[in-house]
Amino acid sequence: MPAYKAPLRDMRFLMNEVFDYPAHYAGLSNGKDADPETCDAILGEAAKFCEEVLAPLNLSGDQEGCHFENGKVTTPKGFKEAYEQFVQGGWQGLSHPTEFGGQGMPMSLGLLKSEMMGTANWSFTMYPGLSLGAMNTVMQHASEELKAIYMPPLTEGRWTGTMCLTEPQCGTDLGQVKTKAEPQLDGSYKITGTKIFISAGEHDLTENIIHIVLARLPDAPPGTKGISLFIVPKMNVNADGSVGEHNNVVCSAIEHKMGIKASATAVINFEQSTGYMIAKPNKGLEAMFTFMNTARIGTAVQGICHAEASFQGALAYAKDRRSMRALRGKQEPDKVADALIHHADVRRMLLTQKCFAEGGRAMIYFAAQLADHMTNGIIENDQAKYHEWDDKLGFFTPILKGFLTEMGLEAANQGIQVFGGHGYIKEHGMEQIARDARISTLYEGTTGIQALDLLGRKVLLQTRGKAVREFTGQIAKFAVDNLRDARLRNFATTLAKYAAEWNVLTMRVMLMARKDREVVSSASHHFLMYSGYVTMAYFWALQAAVASDKLSKGGAEEPAFYKAKIATAKFYFDHILPRAKGHAQSMTKPSKSMLRLPVESFVFE
Amino acid sequence: MPAYKAPLRDMRFLMNEVFDYPAHYAGLSNGKDADPETCDAILGEAAKFCEEVLAPLNLSGDQEGCHFENGKVTTPKGFKEAYEQFVQGGWQGLSHPTEFGGQGMPMSLGLLKSEMMGTANWSFTMYPGLSLGAMNTVMQHASEELKAIYMPPLTEGRWTGTMCLTEPQCGTDLGQVKTKAEPQLDGSYKITGTKIFISAGEHDLTENIIHIVLARLPDAPPGTKGISLFIVPKMNVNADGSVGEHNNVVCSAIEHKMGIKASATAVINFEQSTGYMIAKPNKGLEAMFTFMNTARIGTAVQGICHAEASFQGALAYAKDRRSMRALRGKQEPDKVADALIHHADVRRMLLTQKCFAEGGRAMIYFAAQLADHMTNGIIENDQAKYHEWDDKLGFFTPILKGFLTEMGLEAANQGIQVFGGHGYIKEHGMEQIARDARISTLYEGTTGIQALDLLGRKVLLQTRGKAVREFTGQIAKFAVDNLRDARLRNFATTLAKYAAEWNVLTMRVMLMARKDREVVSSASHHFLMYSGYVTMAYFWALQAAVASDKLSKGGAEEPAFYKAKIATAKFYFDHILPRAKGHAQSMTKPSKSMLRLPVESFVFE
Repeated sequence: MPAYKAPLRDMRFLMNEVFDYPAHYAGLSNGKDADPETCDAILGEAAKFCEEVLAPLNLSGDQEGCHFENGKVTTPKGFKEAYEQFVQGGWQGLSHPTEFGGQGMPMSLGLLKSEMMGTANWSFTMYPGLSLGAMNTVMQHASEELKAIYMPPLTEGRWTGTMCLTEPQCGTDLGQVKTKAEPQLDGSYKITGTKIFISAGEHDLTENIIHIVLARLPDAPPGTKGISLFIVPKMNVNADGSVGEHNNVVCSAIEHKMGIKASATAVINFEQSTGYMIAKPNKGLEAMFTFMNTARIGTAVQGICHAEASFQGALAYAKDRRSMRALRGKQEPDKVADALIHHADVRRMLLTQKCFAEGGRAMIYFAAQLADHMTNGIIENDQAKYHEWDDKLGFFTPILKGFLTEMGLEAANQGIQVFGGHGYIKEHGMEQIARDARISTLYEGTTGIQALDLLGRKVLLQTRGKAVREFTGQIAKFAVDNLRDARLRNFATTLAKYAAEWNVLTMRVMLMARKDREVVSSASHHFLMYSGYVTMAYFWALQAAVASDKLSKGGAEEPAFYKAKIATAKFYFDHILPRAKGHAQSMTKPSKSMLRLPVESFVFE
Repeated sequence: MPAYKAPLRDMRFLMNEVFDYPAHYAGLSNGKDADPETCDAILGEAAKFCEEVLAPLNLSGDQEGCHFENGKVTTPKGFKEAYEQFVQGGWQGLSHPTEFGGQGMPMSLGLLKSEMMGTANWSFTMYPGLSLGAMNTVMQHASEELKAIYMPPLTEGRWTGTMCLTEPQCGTDLGQVKTKAEPQLDGSYKITGTKIFISAGEHDLTENIIHIVLARLPDAPPGTKGISLFIVPKMNVNADGSVGEHNNVVCSAIEHKMGIKASATAVINFEQSTGYMIAKPNKGLEAMFTFMNTARIGTAVQGICHAEASFQGALAYAKDRRSMRALRGKQEPDKVADALIHHADVRRMLLTQKCFAEGGRAMIYFAAQLADHMTNGIIENDQAKYHEWDDKLGFFTPILKGFLTEMGLEAANQGIQVFGGHGYIKEHGMEQIARDARISTLYEGTTGIQALDLLGRKVLLQTRGKAVREFTGQIAKFAVDNLRDARLRNFATTLAKYAAEWNVLTMRVMLMARKDREVVSSASHHFLMYSGYVTMAYFWALQAAVASDKLSKGGAEEPAFYKAKIATAKFYFDHILPRAKGHAQSMTKPSKSMLRLPVESFVFE
């Protein structure tokens, strides 16, 4: 099983050297306490918890899985104790308001914590992770009365929460939701329906579970415009906040899945369960999607988690396992063979993983600052601020979620590949990473949905290409600023070309879409992947620029660290970024390229 | 669970319309009986066996897995009965000589049978599949006496065989093999050592298992030049051919794997087990690798198996599941939503799967004809013929094995993606396909080893680029021949450019490798993938050309079938082939692009 070591050096590099988190936090209303020393202490403690408590439960959790009997779910051995430590440490409320028992730190700090937790044990992280979604929804949309009841135990981690969207007949297409909500005389509702794929929907970690449920009022219009949002607790809550009677929320099964086996994925039947409406009637979908961007970034993190975990495992193996001799001559002549890491093609795989882990991390740390402003718009009840920053973040969200999870899956597969046949054996833990990673491109909007969101919504509909123009403007400015630096010239010229090309491609697809509406779908995958590769290229060049600056000043205490950043950036530009070329060529093909084959001609017997 | 329907129409298209198997078989010494009617009957029967017997055991076999207790392996429910039917049908000896009880048909017919079996149930197919490797090795290298003992029961399927290469300390690097072989006075050897990852190494399907084992004689030189090859039966064989005493061949464990769970992967301990040398002393590795090309094509088939299986599952789901509306307008206005297949991006995934399944099948059918000639060189004891055709086949082997298994894995993942969250759930069987596919890029030489074999051995060392020149010459000729056909012009011009580029890239890499030897490793992955994409493009264009010809003649009874071939070829050229661009750009980077980062700089804590 790969041991986990939190990449604190890289995290500090991004926080303090690349993105200037100290200045960023100093400018936030809730950032005053997030000084560098405090952040360092928090991240150090989180790292310890992840390395010592969560990581050792990862393989055993996969092997044991969750148990289901008579409607009860038992989590794998050690999970309950680990969760208690998590609650004791106050980790759940790290980035939530102090008035509810949280620590009131900026949202981004919670994301950094989540990355470490998720790398150590993604299945475990799902339980408090879903709760964050529920907390955010309650915090923004529920009445003060409901908040007073539900926010403190959720923030403290004494209860967890879920998001109940999917039903057997629909996932993406929530307009098909059938769950019913019947108003009662006391202002509450009776909720009846079946929800599936409910992560953390049932478990033994806490005494109550708070479900956030999409359902329809009796007089609701059809489709997405007739969906409302409800709090439905598993156990009713007494006036004093204590847990009361069972609320007819029944877990009828848990799924048998490819991976994240220690995370319970429940089928939940609401049988005249009492619920409380939050947000306005029939406006449930919009309310549910308020925190969509942060939720999706929370899933984007999964990409770097699996890339990092698989990289750490593969790196250790590649240094240890000996096979054949390097083509350039024996590297370890006194050994029976050279370690795997001396072979160029093995380096390719390791560097690919490193590129995705560290490049993705930089993308997340960038977006996390936007998310801090967005979140503070909500906390400060400043709708204009919220919308301004949510829009800025919105362009990056599908790129991060769509691209980074695909790259995480690739990195996890590369990790298996470095192990050769041993990668296929469960005890080494490498195949688990690939199985766990496989969910990340499916839930919280599939990659296809992210692609459509990016091209159709964020680029064409909402901004008519402005989002691309603005970001490529930033890239082009960076390129111009660094053209004269010999260490950065190649990065700068390449980036300048891609920035221009990205704009041209966006224009071409926009023009095509006027006559061929379906191009928005047929080009979307290529547009997403192209955007991802170019975005990551920018953030690698940015890291290289900071490293180059440190080296130029001569006083760098760790030249090897900075040189490694530049070397990895070069690898990215040489061996990963060129993949964008194929996507550029394919995205301008007309949609009939995909649609000319009639449905009945897909197969002949 | 996806139902399996053998793609007989496509198989007949390739056999009778694209590659003219009737003429090919008529020219083979063992092809006289393989007339179109007989082939049709054989493939039809095989299809029935695969659809009705093997496919229904695929999901249950994965769920149950193999059982290990006290050195004995029990295969999943139904496997023993299915194997008996397999033996009864005479399927094992289909392509092996009649003198051993086989049916004496050409080798290629066995490959086509294997594709159907493997698509229906890859785990099951492993048992007779490994046996084929053992049979081929015995047939070519063992004495007449040993052949008389072992070939009939293996050919009839009453016994199975294995290939025992890997040991705990080495897989690829067989020079590290430690298993010992001590000569005995009676001419036999005592074999002692541990072999791991032995597929079909122990099971309950047959009364005996014949292991082909790599081991060292006491005076053997170190490394690969000191390895000999032995037959080591699990049970000794009496003079009358009946099974005698146990031969101290002990299965001490079976592996817990990511997939192919119904295929037992055994740890085998030889404890002074009696073995019989085949081939010459210290020449075991060469002998073992005689059938390497056919064995690797046998594994390349796995790529199309999983692409086909996943495509069939995803296609059925995409027609059935309804979500959202197509961007070009409602396609099924009377339904609650449009079926998934109406969305362009879903088409992209389905067409990608179809491209890989059918394009890969064409590549296999092409190579299978070369393999027929090569195999007949052995059967006819014609060394010159064997070497001539083995060399021709040798260039394509790593492309097929390396590229098609990677594409099979991608196709299997696309199948999950079409299912969305449901793809992650075991009961649908889609995630199993991805797990089963995952082994294919690891065993029988990892993708990295195939890449090195292609660029280092087959292209640079053995032919100094001639293999590429010859094949691209064939592609260029095709392009010229079809430039005037309006339906084919785009394919032809694109192919002509790639054929030229492939040559130029080969020359550039060759020149670079003179000064920078490690480039052979650092460029190998990109060279393999580039070669794969261009090769598949040629075989798609070839299929389109045949289809176009049929349509032009106006008398095609099934215009939809031929139009589908052309539409799918267009998709391939628009959306898959452009990926080669990135690989072309990356392969000419110097090896320092991967090697400049010192080993100790991969990670900083």
